[in-house]
Amino acid sequence: MSVGKLIGASLGPGDPDLITRRAWSALHGGARWMWPIRKKSGESYALSIALAAGLTPPDDGIPQVFPMTHDAEILSRYWLLAAQAVLQTLNSGRDVVFLVEGDASTYSTFGYLARTVRALQFDVVIDTIPGVSAYHAASARLGESLADTDDTVAIIPAAYGIDYVEAIVHQFDTLVLLKVKPLLDDLIDWLAQRDLLQHARFVEKAGSSAERVVTDVAALRGTKVNYLSLLLVRNPERQRGAVQKGCRKKNEQPA
Amino acid sequence: MSVGKLIGASLGPGDPDLITRRAWSALHGGARWMWPIRKKSGESYALSIALAAGLTPPDDGIPQVFPMTHDAEILSRYWLLAAQAVLQTLNSGRDVVFLVEGDASTYSTFGYLARTVRALQFDVVIDTIPGVSAYHAASARLGESLADTDDTVAIIPAAYGIDYVEAIVHQFDTLVLLKVKPLLDDLIDWLAQRDLLQHARFVEKAGSSAERVVTDVAALRGTKVNYLSLLLVRNPERQRGAVQKGCRKKNEQPA
Repeated sequence: MSVGKLIGASLGPGDPDLITRRAWSALHGGARWMWPIRKKSGESYALSIALAAGLTPPDDGIPQVFPMTHDAEILSRYWLLAAQAVLQTLNSGRDVVFLVEGDASTYSTFGYLARTVRALQFDVVIDTIPGVSAYHAASARLGESLADTDDTVAIIPAAYGIDYVEAIVHQFDTLVLLKVKPLLDDLIDWLAQRDLLQHARFVEKAGSSAERVVTDVAALRGTKVNYLSLLLVRNPERQRGAVQKGCRKKNEQPA
Repeated sequence: MSVGKLIGASLGPGDPDLITRRAWSALHGGARWMWPIRKKSGESYALSIALAAGLTPPDDGIPQVFPMTHDAEILSRYWLLAAQAVLQTLNSGRDVVFLVEGDASTYSTFGYLARTVRALQFDVVIDTIPGVSAYHAASARLGESLADTDDTVAIIPAAYGIDYVEAIVHQFDTLVLLKVKPLLDDLIDWLAQRDLLQHARFVEKAGSSAERVVTDVAALRGTKVNYLSLLLVRNPERQRGAVQKGCRKKNEQPA
């Protein structure tokens, strides 16, 4: 009997129409569905995307608990449990499709799960289907470029704080500040001080039906925002170094 | 008569199965197709993705020339021509779907086109459909995370050179170095010197049928690579600042 494969199906940021054709096929291919939840009997954002697409999870679909903690010992215990559940199904000859919100390689539990599965059984086939990330959806919604030609982009969980953002801002055309909730007021002060407020946009639950866009970012001071929120900041003052001549020259040849 | 809208349809990095359901619908919605080419009678990578999906461009589909140059005067002349062609169709009451490779907000000609259209006619409705980017496809293909929890990511056109990469590497867990072709040997030397060679992966034409992955990056020294190539570099030595306590604490609450 052959061993099944593990498919990481990125479902995009929330709008079921942003599911790729390949992830869509994976959901319909007879693989056993698994999806992450934060706690027993909790909601799954990843599963909610499939439900919003009008799909019904197969009867034998099972949630896997990935608690929201930074405690490495607790986390690895839950990764192990989930990996064992995955392997039990794979070793019965059936594929597993693991539902992932956003993109499976980007701030996702799927990476940890896949590594744990591999650690237990090194020759398992893992097929990761890439997806649309929240910051690409946010840029599209705003109708603004994340990056134009030669632009540099930094993607930063805002928890690193103002000093970090201040240290790198000069080198980047675009800052994507993720999970800004706990630092939002400090970030607004910093943007004002750097004269970047008018170049900042706030997007909550980007790419979902509950999406909220705020262009007057200063108006958010003192308000509560969702955990799934980000700031896109364009930095028109970025000091650009000289682009390598050879590169420009070669770039001007047709591909 | 109502004015049509401009749809920027991101088709993903090349594999037609990575087209989203929404872009797929847009291709089938009766809008007039337009697609970018580098020079008259040249190939269009964006169109080739739709063709690879088995689609046939409608008879009235038209290519728009976006020459590969950094000359701002030449570029703006071609953006203007394309924007005028778009507006002519929109003002006849018909939608235009503009085919875009990768993600429309990220290193794409679509941003320039959309801004030029808006400059000529400010109230045009523009609907940007986000897509899967090449670096997400590359990460998925490698089965490696672009970012794990709290990781920072820098996306950099390599043309900025070694000094730039050296200046920021300490602040980032992942570097995405784009268009590495003209600098590849210098980058390999730098990776070796920084002891990062074993953490670097090369991907050419990520997410397309001609995709090529090279894990022994040093072996590429002195060879020719395609223009559409990137390096993903993980930096295990990154000095992490303290994560804000409040953030961690709040992050540990379920969303």
